[in-house]
Amino acid sequence: MSFSVTILGSGAAIPTSQRNPTAQYVQCSERHILIDCGEGTQIQIRKLGIKFQRINYILISHLHGDHYFGLVGLLSTMHLLGREKPIQIYGPPGLKELIMNQIHAGGGGLAFEISFVELEKDSSGVLFEDAKIKINYFPLSHRVPTSGFVITQKVKERRLFADKAKRDGVKIEHYHRLKAGEDIEFEGKIFLSEDYTESNGPELKYAFCSDTEYMPNVVESVKGVDLLYHEATFLENLRDRAIATKHSTAGDAAKVAKEASVGKLLMGHLSARYENGESHLEEARPVFENCAVPEDGDVFVV
Amino acid sequence: MSFSVTILGSGAAIPTSQRNPTAQYVQCSERHILIDCGEGTQIQIRKLGIKFQRINYILISHLHGDHYFGLVGLLSTMHLLGREKPIQIYGPPGLKELIMNQIHAGGGGLAFEISFVELEKDSSGVLFEDAKIKINYFPLSHRVPTSGFVITQKVKERRLFADKAKRDGVKIEHYHRLKAGEDIEFEGKIFLSEDYTESNGPELKYAFCSDTEYMPNVVESVKGVDLLYHEATFLENLRDRAIATKHSTAGDAAKVAKEASVGKLLMGHLSARYENGESHLEEARPVFENCAVPEDGDVFVV
Repeated sequence: MSFSVTILGSGAAIPTSQRNPTAQYVQCSERHILIDCGEGTQIQIRKLGIKFQRINYILISHLHGDHYFGLVGLLSTMHLLGREKPIQIYGPPGLKELIMNQIHAGGGGLAFEISFVELEKDSSGVLFEDAKIKINYFPLSHRVPTSGFVITQKVKERRLFADKAKRDGVKIEHYHRLKAGEDIEFEGKIFLSEDYTESNGPELKYAFCSDTEYMPNVVESVKGVDLLYHEATFLENLRDRAIATKHSTAGDAAKVAKEASVGKLLMGHLSARYENGESHLEEARPVFENCAVPEDGDVFVV
Repeated sequence: MSFSVTILGSGAAIPTSQRNPTAQYVQCSERHILIDCGEGTQIQIRKLGIKFQRINYILISHLHGDHYFGLVGLLSTMHLLGREKPIQIYGPPGLKELIMNQIHAGGGGLAFEISFVELEKDSSGVLFEDAKIKINYFPLSHRVPTSGFVITQKVKERRLFADKAKRDGVKIEHYHRLKAGEDIEFEGKIFLSEDYTESNGPELKYAFCSDTEYMPNVVESVKGVDLLYHEATFLENLRDRAIATKHSTAGDAAKVAKEASVGKLLMGHLSARYENGESHLEEARPVFENCAVPEDGDVFVV
């Protein structure tokens, strides 16, 4: 069961010829999720050969253009290519109207249903959950209401020692309870789940934080995730700019990663003034070693 | 005095990895004009090294997304890069609200003024005129109100034979009238403009027609232009699709070019189903020989 993050855009507000504005494609246990959708996202999706009709969930962090100006174009193209399957969009209040006004101005509509779910300011909770994945959101601290997201690949069912269970007389109707981690009492005997099953791998988590200034609450929200994408628009020498615009530095991102004990840190949303991520890595590594600055098109397995 | 057209996007509604949606950059006698602004236009402008703060006039043909979804992002970037110089935008009613609602949703504004001029349905006239250029608009026939545009580089001032004029006693204060083509009567003598000046080259015209079905009125509007860009979304074997969607075929584009006696025809807005323009050229050439199917990034001198 795969769990990967493809960076479609790693740039900030001003796109460069190297970095598109923010967008990520997350594949998690056959669920296909788009996080943010800056201008040009549909072109990036096409260039990278991703099948975008598979996308069923779109999460929009906030209403700055570099995080959603590509959404209306993506939805239009899904329609033109014959989509009928509904789509779920989670984003700030106001997003629905901005998108649908543009769709209607073109004189038409969409052949598929969109379910818009509004994320209220400063709120948190579960956006979506099924047997295999869970998506949480939590507040970030930026100039407009902004949400971060955690995508969890759930603990898989434990693997059953079928031969042993059969030999010891465990009934087939009890197998699913043992695999779910329950112990069974049957005809006076106790069958421990751990005697008849083994772990099928741990729960895995990916967290997305962009855009935000450093805030202790964010650390709490991303505690222990395996992979953290955190914006690092500036370096410490532009602390004034970071404060004024409510963005983070590479140092901030590393501090969050360290305090939250994450597995690995990806830094993105780099200001157009930086030609590459070298200085970001130099600033972050003394605080948190396992970090990277992705390029557009890079894929990370969680 | 240069006059050139740079194709920023030659594709139709569904962008491909080869063709961006519609946008063109026109340079005419130091005036810098953008025609249409599909998604990703600002990234194309940057990749081609065009100085986009120079753009002072933006013409939007109609409110289908592949012709304007990139406008709000371009304006945002102009703002972020410090623009203070006002900009003129000409487009269909409703455009202003769609753009400004998105700008305001981001919690900010723009540091420069936009003057939006609405092009009423089925109307035509002069949008802009100064000493060097003129921009006209005229109605096209599509599913929503759509305008075509003609950009004219005006006849340059005639070149004066200064020695001859001096020798024959023409007063310096009459020079500009002779250069403008006027004859002068002075102290009983007549000085003919054509005796004292020569042509400095002809008036040049570029016309843009996208999106539209074939219509005799369009032929009238683009009569005799030096360069015509005409949409050719389909080929004749998809005539039904062309009729249903109010688009043109390569045959239609060639017919307009021939009937309007234009200098050269560029065909664009090719449906994503066509990998290249070969079949379009085969269909158009028997009707109108001097034609081309541009690629994104191509530059044409008018």
